[in-house]
Amino acid sequence: MTFYQKLEQHHKKLAKLDHLASICSWDQAAMMPEGGNAARSEAMAELAVISHEMATAPYLAEWFELAHRESLSQEEKASLTEMKRVWRNANVLPADLVEEQSLACSTCEHAWRTQRGNNDWQGFSENLKKVVELTRREAKIRSEATGLSPYDALLDQYEPGMTSAKLDALFADVKTWLPELITQIREKQTHDEVMQPVGPFPIDEQKALSLDIMQKLGFDFHHGRLDVSMHPFCGGVPTDVRITTRYDEADFTSALMGVIHETGHARYEQGLPEKWAGLPVGTARSMGIHESQSLFFEMQLSRSENFIDILAPLAAETFNRIDDPALTPENLTLLNTRVAPGYIRVDADEVTYPAHVILRYEIERDLIEGRIEVADIPELWDRKMHEYLGLNTKGNFTDGCMQDIHWPMGSFGYFPSYTLGAMYAAQFMAAMRKEMNVENLIRERNFQPIFNWLDRHVWKRASLVNTDKLLIESTGEALNAQHLKDHLISRYLG
Amino acid sequence: MTFYQKLEQHHKKLAKLDHLASICSWDQAAMMPEGGNAARSEAMAELAVISHEMATAPYLAEWFELAHRESLSQEEKASLTEMKRVWRNANVLPADLVEEQSLACSTCEHAWRTQRGNNDWQGFSENLKKVVELTRREAKIRSEATGLSPYDALLDQYEPGMTSAKLDALFADVKTWLPELITQIREKQTHDEVMQPVGPFPIDEQKALSLDIMQKLGFDFHHGRLDVSMHPFCGGVPTDVRITTRYDEADFTSALMGVIHETGHARYEQGLPEKWAGLPVGTARSMGIHESQSLFFEMQLSRSENFIDILAPLAAETFNRIDDPALTPENLTLLNTRVAPGYIRVDADEVTYPAHVILRYEIERDLIEGRIEVADIPELWDRKMHEYLGLNTKGNFTDGCMQDIHWPMGSFGYFPSYTLGAMYAAQFMAAMRKEMNVENLIRERNFQPIFNWLDRHVWKRASLVNTDKLLIESTGEALNAQHLKDHLISRYLG
Ligand SMILES: [Zn+2]
Ligand SMILES: [Zn+2]
Repeated sequence: MTFYQKLEQHHKKLAKLDHLASICSWDQAAMMPEGGNAARSEAMAELAVISHEMATAPYLAEWFELAHRESLSQEEKASLTEMKRVWRNANVLPADLVEEQSLACSTCEHAWRTQRGNNDWQGFSENLKKVVELTRREAKIRSEATGLSPYDALLDQYEPGMTSAKLDALFADVKTWLPELITQIREKQTHDEVMQPVGPFPIDEQKALSLDIMQKLGFDFHHGRLDVSMHPFCGGVPTDVRITTRYDEADFTSALMGVIHETGHARYEQGLPEKWAGLPVGTARSMGIHESQSLFFEMQLSRSENFIDILAPLAAETFNRIDDPALTPENLTLLNTRVAPGYIRVDADEVTYPAHVILRYEIERDLIEGRIEVADIPELWDRKMHEYLGLNTKGNFTDGCMQDIHWPMGSFGYFPSYTLGAMYAAQFMAAMRKEMNVENLIRERNFQPIFNWLDRHVWKRASLVNTDKLLIESTGEALNAQHLKDHLISRYLG
Repeated sequence: MTFYQKLEQHHKKLAKLDHLASICSWDQAAMMPEGGNAARSEAMAELAVISHEMATAPYLAEWFELAHRESLSQEEKASLTEMKRVWRNANVLPADLVEEQSLACSTCEHAWRTQRGNNDWQGFSENLKKVVELTRREAKIRSEATGLSPYDALLDQYEPGMTSAKLDALFADVKTWLPELITQIREKQTHDEVMQPVGPFPIDEQKALSLDIMQKLGFDFHHGRLDVSMHPFCGGVPTDVRITTRYDEADFTSALMGVIHETGHARYEQGLPEKWAGLPVGTARSMGIHESQSLFFEMQLSRSENFIDILAPLAAETFNRIDDPALTPENLTLLNTRVAPGYIRVDADEVTYPAHVILRYEIERDLIEGRIEVADIPELWDRKMHEYLGLNTKGNFTDGCMQDIHWPMGSFGYFPSYTLGAMYAAQFMAAMRKEMNVENLIRERNFQPIFNWLDRHVWKRASLVNTDKLLIESTGEALNAQHLKDHLISRYLG
């Protein structure tokens, strides 16, 4: 057995443990009764320790050394690079820092769940300071190991190859046109008469509608399922993808759009190349590319007029409301393309969403680079909310800088993925349009060519090439934010 | 840290891995889409390898040596004994035998699933021969390690302390009165007019009824749940017990009685002492004691006239059939106490059930001890079915010696647990009756004193004492089959 093969075997073992962790963590969110939580968390922590020990086994350094000298195919070289990236990321942190972080984050996150409701910035910021301090230590260590700046070293874990220099340029551009675009759209929409569909929409029927749409969007039920959890997500493993949603009897569109979003994530996972199953090179390219698939399904595809023409009668039929004027394609289109600046990121429409992300990015970048402190966050938040969305959040921490779980969890560097995903998605759609008449295909309910394009250019590419190359090979150019701008202008001002 | 404490820590780690294996195996049976199976099985096999390596780590021998010399409380001594039993059971087999067995059994079981339907004894017996040969090797090794006879060494894994000498005596006694008892009951029941309730019984309503009964029987939904699987079972972990059932629209009683049975298993698990969680001494005493709890709930409690008086109106109400004459307490009692010799063990009533078990016990005992060969099974099966139940199974392998999954899986020594469970259950009930008026309590729907008795005498005892002692302490005597006989006579001829 070559050293490359030994490394493959090693990573496939790790993937098997990840498989079980994934299923148990899905179970924890979607199935487990509350009383099972303490023992479950301990059991999963134990598996994490075993996985970590395996991932950082001392002999691996030599295996990588020797594998590099072996004669490898192009794809095997990519595979080796990705295995090494995983290994380096796992290895670089001292165990005591990991433990301290895990403790500080779980303390901070746990307290945040009540502090947020109490608007208790004082209490929260005490815990967050500790989290930031440890994250800065992590960033410094990762920075030394990679040669990247501290924040970039964190970013690199979610979006390999992305840097704050690139993000600064991208977002600076967005900031030149976004506020004005929002204003124009708001003006255009002023006189739209939108009806809010009035519930109850029975959960059984919402579920039937969700399953129906998943089927139409090609979700493979032989390799996955839909369930319910407090916070919707896409979990499981490529051979068994578990997506979740949350139903609200008063409003069916949020669960439905959520299901479509998660179906995009799921199809990426289900479409990953079998040949590379269990290896880092066979996994999703990045968080941003992952989000591009969910946003392609949700924003590019399903909020388009032609798709809503399919969706609306399905909904009306499922809910037995063929005469409900709120369920006409026209009204559902207005509803699903309504733009309104708001405090909450997860409720934001696709036009205002980037503003939420840019705000968070700028704050977390400066926080990790040591240019600002936790105490500075509220003022910066207020100023930027005012500047980007014209909203005043002063004193409202609950719906301001305490709204997201990311920072309490210690996930710094993740936020940009959301807007990168929207940009990638728009760029994929623009490239696709050059090859086929997407609108006609949707009208004809012939989605297969669309999915085939994604399968060939994104899903089957997994991590075989880096993000830049993936974009160039599929769209003919590197990331170009113009496509998102064009998409927004065409949909909202066209 | 003392060596005893090190051993505790070690076993708690193992229990955490078992926790994840349990949940993933529940998921595999109750949730997983078919396409997930191959990768899931591989992932679980990987965890099993890691667990096995941990359970047989070389340093444990010395730890046990040294722990034995430490000063331990009575309970810690019991804990050490149980840890050692687990360790010895895991250690004694050479890895290549375990692997060969795992392969032979999965081949045999997999082929059995189609061979059974095809009545293909010839094909099946070829695979079974291999399984038996390897099981004999296992039994020989376990025999040498324990000083027990080969079959007893297998039996000891499911029912520690039980031997074929004891079983021979118990079953010889049963055989003196059971055939005659069956005849008498059959005669008494000849003129009973039993109505079979006619479906459909909607699955939603069956589920609601199941949950209602589980609630009444004290199932803790904060630490467990009910789902659906092809073969009902009780899985999960004590803090999160997962029971399953299978609904049949045409017949609600099978799912309902199944749920009550699994609820008995579940309450044992949920009632195990928290103080010893994660340690062998804190687990169920034996398969027979486990079955005694399910049979206590199903047979002793729920098929009693007074309980059916509660059950029948609940069912009639749930199914909206208050006037259905098939759902009166009288008819449901007749239905649930109907005795009829049949070919299939899992469909047998509580009176004929022991005959099925004794038949299998006698065959598997002689098979493992090398007194008969696989080729002899059909003739023995036919003869014993004729002798014990008056049925002719000649040539019908499907409903004869090929009906159970146990032998194809390599589970020899398990069958006696079913009838031991029925005997323990009857003995517990007899002891309980000395302390309280059980029938009155049921009539008053005051089950708590009954559950308290089981909790104190069985659940909280876990494996802190051996089975003999558990029985003596709770019922004043060692296992006594007379109680089962008395129960059957009183219920069926009384
Ligand atoms: Zn997403
Ligand atoms: Zn049972």
